[in-house]
Amino acid sequence: MSRFDPHASLFKALESAGCDETLPPTQTLLDAARFNSDGLIPAIAQQHDSGEVLMMAWMNREALEETLSTRRVCYYSRSRGKLWRKGESSGQQQALVSAAFDCDADTVLLQVDQTGPACHTGRRSCFYIAVDHEKAAITSAPLIDPATLYAKR
Amino acid sequence: MSRFDPHASLFKALESAGCDETLPPTQTLLDAARFNSDGLIPAIAQQHDSGEVLMMAWMNREALEETLSTRRVCYYSRSRGKLWRKGESSGQQQALVSAAFDCDADTVLLQVDQTGPACHTGRRSCFYIAVDHEKAAITSAPLIDPATLYAKR
Repeated sequence: MSRFDPHASLFKALESAGCDETLPPTQTLLDAARFNSDGLIPAIAQQHDSGEVLMMAWMNREALEETLSTRRVCYYSRSRGKLWRKGESSGQQQALVSAAFDCDADTVLLQVDQTGPACHTGRRSCFYIAVDHEKAAITSAPLIDPATLYAKR
Repeated sequence: MSRFDPHASLFKALESAGCDETLPPTQTLLDAARFNSDGLIPAIAQQHDSGEVLMMAWMNREALEETLSTRRVCYYSRSRGKLWRKGESSGQQQALVSAAFDCDADTVLLQVDQTGPACHTGRRSCFYIAVDHEKAAITSAPLIDPATLYAKR
């Protein structure tokens, strides 16, 4: 039997795994991943070459499986209650470069190649509202007028 | 009255704010931020100079306020049910460089300066389990034996 017994805590066993070891198949990892009580896991999208963190959204297992098989990022929209193929309205798609679980398998980090802005406001990244102890500031401007972005649909 | 009326949807109004505008104080933004039903918000930690995404954890308002005032990152441990000053057991602290909310104020991105490994396994980043459609692989090795890391406490 593999030392990665799926009935034991798989991700606990992976903590001591090396880079040259053969791991269980992705489906086994997905069975053990820690989707929350709504069946969702947070997914962070990072532009693969610049390192910029673009956004954080949620995936259910179906969205994650579709993302891995099609290589086009698909989230789960909590407000709409359905799969959300990033860019389906705006055209601002994310091509998947790679995906990784964290140590306790409750978050996914996606390396992506983002077409245009990731943010619905037309900004490249959703993280544009800086805060310190006292003050806040807007740190980036839209690349595209969001009215134009969504007029494409 | 400011056009950033705290009784309206503050973050909706900020979507069209410019980089040179004076925003409401941080406390007003924290009042409007979207902590979840458990009072928590996901916080992504990114190494400020290399761009590496180190980890994702959760903060309550108290943890976020402490982080902004002390400039040392403090999360909320869901398993322990209390504030978790990163590095208090391992010595592997995170100094805060900057913090930003995303467009809908339900996620925080922290630029940090991480001392040593961020991950409890001794790896620099928690995101070391790559998955594609079929296969998984470990992508990094521990910098430090985790037994040594936690023996310091």
